Amino acid sequence: MNRRGKASAAPIDERGFHRWVASHLPAGRTGALPIGDDAAALRPPRGSVAVLTTDALIEGTHFAAGSPPRSIGAAAAGVSLSDAASKGARPAGILIALLLPPGTSRHWAESVLRGAEAAGARFDAHVVGGDTKPAPVRAVISTVVGWGTAGSLAPRSGARPGDLLVTTGSVGRGGSAWRRWRTHRGGRRDLLALLDVRPRVREGLALAPLVHAMIDTSDGIADSAHLLARASRVRLLLDPDRIPWDRSIAALPRAAREEAGFFGGDYELLAAVPSSALRRAVRAVGSVGGRLHVVGRAERGTGAYLSGPSGLRPLPSAGWSPFQRAMKRHQNRAAPSQGR
Amino acid sequence: MNRRGKASAAPIDERGFHRWVASHLPAGRTGALPIGDDAAALRPPRGSVAVLTTDALIEGTHFAAGSPPRSIGAAAAGVSLSDAASKGARPAGILIALLLPPGTSRHWAESVLRGAEAAGARFDAHVVGGDTKPAPVRAVISTVVGWGTAGSLAPRSGARPGDLLVTTGSVGRGGSAWRRWRTHRGGRRDLLALLDVRPRVREGLALAPLVHAMIDTSDGIADSAHLLARASRVRLLLDPDRIPWDRSIAALPRAAREEAGFFGGDYELLAAVPSSALRRAVRAVGSVGGRLHVVGRAERGTGAYLSGPSGLRPLPSAGWSPFQRAMKRHQNRAAPSQGR
Repeated sequence: MNRRGKASAAPIDERGFHRWVASHLPAGRTGALPIGDDAAALRPPRGSVAVLTTDALIEGTHFAAGSPPRSIGAAAAGVSLSDAASKGARPAGILIALLLPPGTSRHWAESVLRGAEAAGARFDAHVVGGDTKPAPVRAVISTVVGWGTAGSLAPRSGARPGDLLVTTGSVGRGGSAWRRWRTHRGGRRDLLALLDVRPRVREGLALAPLVHAMIDTSDGIADSAHLLARASRVRLLLDPDRIPWDRSIAALPRAAREEAGFFGGDYELLAAVPSSALRRAVRAVGSVGGRLHVVGRAERGTGAYLSGPSGLRPLPSAGWSPFQRAMKRHQNRAAPSQGR
Repeated sequence: MNRRGKASAAPIDERGFHRWVASHLPAGRTGALPIGDDAAALRPPRGSVAVLTTDALIEGTHFAAGSPPRSIGAAAAGVSLSDAASKGARPAGILIALLLPPGTSRHWAESVLRGAEAAGARFDAHVVGGDTKPAPVRAVISTVVGWGTAGSLAPRSGARPGDLLVTTGSVGRGGSAWRRWRTHRGGRRDLLALLDVRPRVREGLALAPLVHAMIDTSDGIADSAHLLARASRVRLLLDPDRIPWDRSIAALPRAAREEAGFFGGDYELLAAVPSSALRRAVRAVGSVGGRLHVVGRAERGTGAYLSGPSGLRPLPSAGWSPFQRAMKRHQNRAAPSQGR
């Protein structure tokens, strides 16, 4: 993984990266290749399928300048862990590619790695390799490889009419953090909350064999419902009275609650489960310390809607995201500098 | 793999990315998860080990503005394919994360993907997923997963005193391209030559079971010799008269030849092979259409040297790379704009 361009002002080159990983992180060695070699090697459990997902977090778009680097690393790994979890894969290894502008401290880079390692280690997945390159913008690109069972992976596309729609947790945690951050103009606690990704790995493993379809709610439950409906060619109806709104937004007026609730950044799981398997699903999630909420159902048709006494309201359409613009505006005003 | 920040001016968002991959590329489906789901799934051959490597190419550092996007995609995949090849892994899947500044055309993004797909397809490895994010700089981050056999993967660290040092091809192809590019100030043909990565996948598969250690020469044969010597705790001696210099630099004066020859960007393989296995190694590489050159040997000791009648000369130390600075200087002068 050594490339040209390394002899720049970047604070930690790729060799430094691998030396640091080898000496500071457990790195989940398999013996097949030593850490710091040109590639990482991981041994799949017998009969398993490799599940792979990659995500890029860019400064100014996905995290604000001045965000604590350990939290950025944890968030980067967490976003990919959440994707793997939503398919029912057991995460095994994490690769981290760092883009580092000149002047970035070595401490910043190492803290990102420590954060990614800590996020994965909770699930026995370790940082096993990566890359680091000088670049004009800070970015963290995480790749997670996990192991699944071919017959038990949960696609987006399997929901059927009659299925119940379930979710693992509170709706609007991400939007609530964003509301506070916008109000307080970038306090450290709010920066941390925005990066507080809690991937539902154990819940995903418990649910995958029981559900017809699953997705994470990284872009919010509304967005995910649209994706699930489209991929599965069904209509999804969510009951707003059964949605487990985050308690920080539950008392807001409806429009504000839904704006925050559907904002994104929740990283819960949304799944379509046959009603015959609901009790087992509730028990399976409970057995790993989680909780499952029935929030709606699948019908014949298309689209995703909120159901109510006065009929159907379309769920806000996918892709709404003022986050990037809001953050840029903020940074131009006052760039916090702690943690760098 | 859907994230906040997608609703920007980027030309192709992640959903578009997956739709495009699903409809334009073969994508190596395994049936375990459909293309466009939150993660890709690949089935490992029985008894295999997953080999993973990731590399970031940044505009202005690793490719010049105006480089043909198809070549950028092929180079990004090629760099990771070369790393996987150097361990003796058979590549299976490619993930591509694209960072796209506003104003980047959809054609640019799709051409990068087509280039990566074409580079992998030569070896039956396909683009199976990825991510795309708005960012202030263009960058392509490739991750390759391949399958190896635990006992046959070639580490950097296995070279032993007495081993012969062999390489698969001409030395200085990358440096020669850079010399021409510097002279002609960014002609299109030279931009293409700089991105012409030819990963030695078949040669790596043929060699891995026979060698003690292997590495690719992405940063040049001198740099790779230093890394191999350090990881294996041996001294490596290269005979300059046996180095297969690229014919474009073979006639240069010694200093210029070595400057170009050790510049980097060659992507050949450098391996330490026990003398008892040399004939088999030569035959194995020949059987896949390649050629193996003996360029030196391993001894007890440390460091990497050029041997000659007048004694030992240290190989230029690792990390020398004026590429980034040179390219920046050039771009400030006249930014070519074709191919965007």
